[in-house]
Amino acid sequence: MTPPYQLLAETAAGGRRGRLLLPHQTVETPVFMPVGTQGTVKAVPQDTLESLGVEIILGNTYHLYLRPGHEPIRRMGGLHRFISWPRAILTDSGGFQVFSLNALRKVTDDGVQFRSHLDGSSHFFTPEHSIDVQIALGADICMAFDECTEYPATRDRAEESLRLTMAWARRSLDHFRAHCGEVPWRNQLEHKQGVPHPSSAWVGSHDPQSPALGPAQSWVPPVPRPWGPGSDPAQSEIGSRTQSLFAIVQGGMYRDLRRQCAERLVEMDFDGYAIGGLSVGEPRELTLEMISEVLPLLPKDKPRYVMGVGYPDEIEQYARLGVDMMDCVLPTRAARHALLFTSEGRLNIKNKQYSEDQSPPDPACQCPVCRRYSRAYLRHLMNAGEPLSATLNSIHNLAYYLAIMQRVRTSLESAPTPFQA
Amino acid sequence: MTPPYQLLAETAAGGRRGRLLLPHQTVETPVFMPVGTQGTVKAVPQDTLESLGVEIILGNTYHLYLRPGHEPIRRMGGLHRFISWPRAILTDSGGFQVFSLNALRKVTDDGVQFRSHLDGSSHFFTPEHSIDVQIALGADICMAFDECTEYPATRDRAEESLRLTMAWARRSLDHFRAHCGEVPWRNQLEHKQGVPHPSSAWVGSHDPQSPALGPAQSWVPPVPRPWGPGSDPAQSEIGSRTQSLFAIVQGGMYRDLRRQCAERLVEMDFDGYAIGGLSVGEPRELTLEMISEVLPLLPKDKPRYVMGVGYPDEIEQYARLGVDMMDCVLPTRAARHALLFTSEGRLNIKNKQYSEDQSPPDPACQCPVCRRYSRAYLRHLMNAGEPLSATLNSIHNLAYYLAIMQRVRTSLESAPTPFQA
Repeated sequence: MTPPYQLLAETAAGGRRGRLLLPHQTVETPVFMPVGTQGTVKAVPQDTLESLGVEIILGNTYHLYLRPGHEPIRRMGGLHRFISWPRAILTDSGGFQVFSLNALRKVTDDGVQFRSHLDGSSHFFTPEHSIDVQIALGADICMAFDECTEYPATRDRAEESLRLTMAWARRSLDHFRAHCGEVPWRNQLEHKQGVPHPSSAWVGSHDPQSPALGPAQSWVPPVPRPWGPGSDPAQSEIGSRTQSLFAIVQGGMYRDLRRQCAERLVEMDFDGYAIGGLSVGEPRELTLEMISEVLPLLPKDKPRYVMGVGYPDEIEQYARLGVDMMDCVLPTRAARHALLFTSEGRLNIKNKQYSEDQSPPDPACQCPVCRRYSRAYLRHLMNAGEPLSATLNSIHNLAYYLAIMQRVRTSLESAPTPFQA
Repeated sequence: MTPPYQLLAETAAGGRRGRLLLPHQTVETPVFMPVGTQGTVKAVPQDTLESLGVEIILGNTYHLYLRPGHEPIRRMGGLHRFISWPRAILTDSGGFQVFSLNALRKVTDDGVQFRSHLDGSSHFFTPEHSIDVQIALGADICMAFDECTEYPATRDRAEESLRLTMAWARRSLDHFRAHCGEVPWRNQLEHKQGVPHPSSAWVGSHDPQSPALGPAQSWVPPVPRPWGPGSDPAQSEIGSRTQSLFAIVQGGMYRDLRRQCAERLVEMDFDGYAIGGLSVGEPRELTLEMISEVLPLLPKDKPRYVMGVGYPDEIEQYARLGVDMMDCVLPTRAARHALLFTSEGRLNIKNKQYSEDQSPPDPACQCPVCRRYSRAYLRHLMNAGEPLSATLNSIHNLAYYLAIMQRVRTSLESAPTPFQA
């Protein structure tokens, strides 16, 4: 098995230039991961994400479990193939949505009972079930099932929540180790190692001989992988890569609880470590304090992921402190609500001042939206309620986030490699 | 001035293979024109339309007049530049929307008083005003202001409506001839004929020296024209092309009224002729009867346009009878309501039978959606209310319509040229 993370360079401040070696994609870090809640980054087609250079997206286990369901997705060859996304995917554990979308949930040591926000049907999630669902979806990175501690929380409440998260992390890991071989694309990758197949240019393609797939499924999307053999130096190893499981450090806003949680999880030896329960309403200084507390405790040879952040200045700040991965709905959600992030600051594209402004959304941006459309046109689309508004605004905001991370990666490359340091 | 239409070949049944020589684009006919009501073909980005081969789109004068307004669009260099669409645009006269969206309209010989469907504000449209608005928008083809006769209509009502339409056609033409030189891109095209300008690759770009444009408007979208000099044999003449004005043949479902209208309008000598007031609820045989009545009366050296049609089999049928241009919201509107047109028939993508169907929407289609995505995924997007659903469905339906017209054009090319016949 290939280790999933390579540290390439590290700054004195802790910033890390690295590389995630995932089954479907080698991902350059630090990386910002767009959120594709229901198997789509809202309003943005997959080929646009590719051309923006997106290497990894998120899928939400809770949403995909409820609709269309993990079993149909497994039968169709996994999430990559279902949504026609040949690059990497990370799925969350479903825990966050179970807690945030369900007022009537019932938590026991065994798991969480909740009602679907779609139809009120009753469901029970355990750590084992969350892992089963994530293996069925076939994400490159799965997350351990956790309880996200709300803010504010008393110390007693945070301690109790932490106890649950650590017990569930252990169960998630044990179940993952026993079953991660059941990933739906495993045969596809092995196949890829062997005799070339006409459709093998697409990692997500399945073996047409496979009896598990019916006749209607013999179609293989003929999408060329732009990063195919030759363009990716690690491509030849890709078949030996497997799903990874990351743990989630909780502990509320209590530094000692965070420390305790990180140390216990590191002992369990996960493939990577996330810091969760942040960006839940606390002041920004507290977010930074928790991240700074936890990062030094995490092993240098494993990736570190801060969940659910953040604003453009935040993701740059955290990346320079040593965070390798971040995700947030902010760029796409803000886009749908007229908020554009630009090098000149935030811009509410609904404002009347832009009604005849023919400059691009961000004059310093090279994205396809800024190269083609004006503020006046984007304002018109938003005011007219046109669906193209969400698409163009989202493309720009994502491009803005991705460009920040590209700049950070470039600046981190000038740092000494860890071996020279 | 270049004549706006070239007839290349004609079949015994009347089918015509031709070419529209418009200021922003040479358009191969017969052509289907996607509708971009509010300056956007709903849910489809402009670069996608280009890659699908769309050469001309529609804009709705009524909608653009109300929002963002024709004067702002004129100040920004015209509709092409405002929406960043360098190919051809046709604008309707606003008449159809005034009548269909306004229960409280008041018609006199002078024009129509109506209330905005957006804010209830009062507006008055005359033929002259409609033409002024269309010149400000700068469409390649303008339409004369008409009254679209409803269906069913008594003979008296149809006669009265026809009288109005013919009087308004005369006034539209006189006003157009007096003012068509005021089009916002006129200087841009003249400029293009002279010294090359760094941004002249984009016809819609303006002269940065123009005092009419403020400092914020010095930005020029650097969109390369894929059909620039060299790729379009008529490119060198493009600067001499001007806006065209088409008349609209009305007359309800009365053959003699249609004939009378066509003959009078032809005497006035418009650049092209549309057949309006069809697809308004009448049976399909009646639509065909009216089209067949009018077509032989129209001059062979002018383009013929049937407005607001139709289903895939209809547009093919009419094109083979000699209709050069058609437009319809159907492919994009149906797409947003889950209806896909395919070589296997109509397909309601919401149906449960597609929940695990991994075949493409249309196995015979080569569009980017059919090459990448499955029915199961499109069904999921629709059921989950995802905005990508409208985008992908619309792209496929438009591609399906465009492919029909491409096939028709190819088959018409085997007909003898009119000179050999």
